[in-house]
Amino acid sequence: MFYATARLCRVCWSATFAEQEKPAQDPTALYNLSYGLFVLSARESGKDNGCIANTCFQVANDPTKLVISVQKGNLTREMIERSGAFNVSVLTESVPFETIRNFGMQSGRDTDKLAGFETKRSYNGLVYLTEHTNAMFSCKVLERIDLGSHVLLVGEVTQSKVLGKEPSCTYAYYHKAIKPKF
Amino acid sequence: MFYATARLCRVCWSATFAEQEKPAQDPTALYNLSYGLFVLSARESGKDNGCIANTCFQVANDPTKLVISVQKGNLTREMIERSGAFNVSVLTESVPFETIRNFGMQSGRDTDKLAGFETKRSYNGLVYLTEHTNAMFSCKVLERIDLGSHVLLVGEVTQSKVLGKEPSCTYAYYHKAIKPKF
Repeated sequence: MFYATARLCRVCWSATFAEQEKPAQDPTALYNLSYGLFVLSARESGKDNGCIANTCFQVANDPTKLVISVQKGNLTREMIERSGAFNVSVLTESVPFETIRNFGMQSGRDTDKLAGFETKRSYNGLVYLTEHTNAMFSCKVLERIDLGSHVLLVGEVTQSKVLGKEPSCTYAYYHKAIKPKF
Repeated sequence: MFYATARLCRVCWSATFAEQEKPAQDPTALYNLSYGLFVLSARESGKDNGCIANTCFQVANDPTKLVISVQKGNLTREMIERSGAFNVSVLTESVPFETIRNFGMQSGRDTDKLAGFETKRSYNGLVYLTEHTNAMFSCKVLERIDLGSHVLLVGEVTQSKVLGKEPSCTYAYYHKAIKPKF
C-alpha cells in the first residue's frame, strides 16, 4: 500500500513537474551579462575624486536619464550623493591597466586620484578624462535607490560630448585583454 | 565707460569660466555606452510572452539582484509587473536577426511570439530560450522605479544557469554584424 502510494505520488509529481527545473543558481552565469567600463567623477569642497564603474546606461529619453550603480563604501559615491552631480568618462579599449588600478583599487581618502591624468572641467565644474575615453556625460542626480551593497543613482544628463572614435572598453574586453594574468 | 565695464565683465567671466564648457548635449555620445542583448519572458493566465531588452545587469550580491529596463508600452512589461516574475535569456553572437525581429519588432498582443522557438520551462514556470543563449536567470520582482518612458525593475535571482560558451551578443555587435543594412 505504501509503495503504491509512493508510486502514484512519483507518477503524479513527474506529470506535474516534468517540464520544471530545480531552482539552483550558478554564479558564473552572471559573467555572461555585458557591461562597459567607466570613470565616475565627483567634486566636493574643492576636492576632485573618481572611481571605476562597470554600470552606466540610458534609461529614459526627453530628458535623457542615465543610471549608474556604485558600491556603498565608495568615497566618490558619498561625494556624488552630497553634491548631487557626477560625470561619466567612457573608457576605450586602449585604456592601460594603470588607469583601472588608480581609480578602482585605492581610495580617494588616501590619495589624489586625478594627479597625473589628462582631464578637462565640464560646465558643472567637475573633471572628466580626455585620454582613453570616447564620450563624457555630466549628470544631475534625480533619484537614489538603495540596493543593499550598492546604490543606483538616476541622473539627468546636463552635458554630453563625443571624445573619440575608438571602441568602448567592455568589461569582457577588460578581463580578456587589459587585466594582468598572474 | 560702457566699454570698460563690458571689458571688465568679459575679463571677469573669462577668469571664472576659462576652464568651463558650454553645457551642450551630443546624443551620439549615448552610442558609446555598452549594453548586452536579452530576451525577457513572462507568463500570465497560461500565456507566455517575451520581448527584447538591452539592459540587464547585476546590482547587488547576497541575494543577487538584477535590474532590467523595459519600455512602458510593452505587453511583457505589464505581464512581468502583474505576475511579479521574469526570466532573462542572454543572447549570443550567433543569434539571427529573425529572433530580434520576432521578440523586438511586434507585439505579443497580436501573436504568439514563442511559437517555433526552442525553449525550456524554469522552476518558476516561465520559459527561457535554449538556442543562441549562454545563460538564463529567473527573477522575482522586488522593486519598481518609474522613469518616464521606461520602468526599471529590480529582481532577486531565484534560479540561474549557464547554457553555453559562445560570447554574449553586445548591442554594439548587434549593430555591426546582425542588423541588416538597408
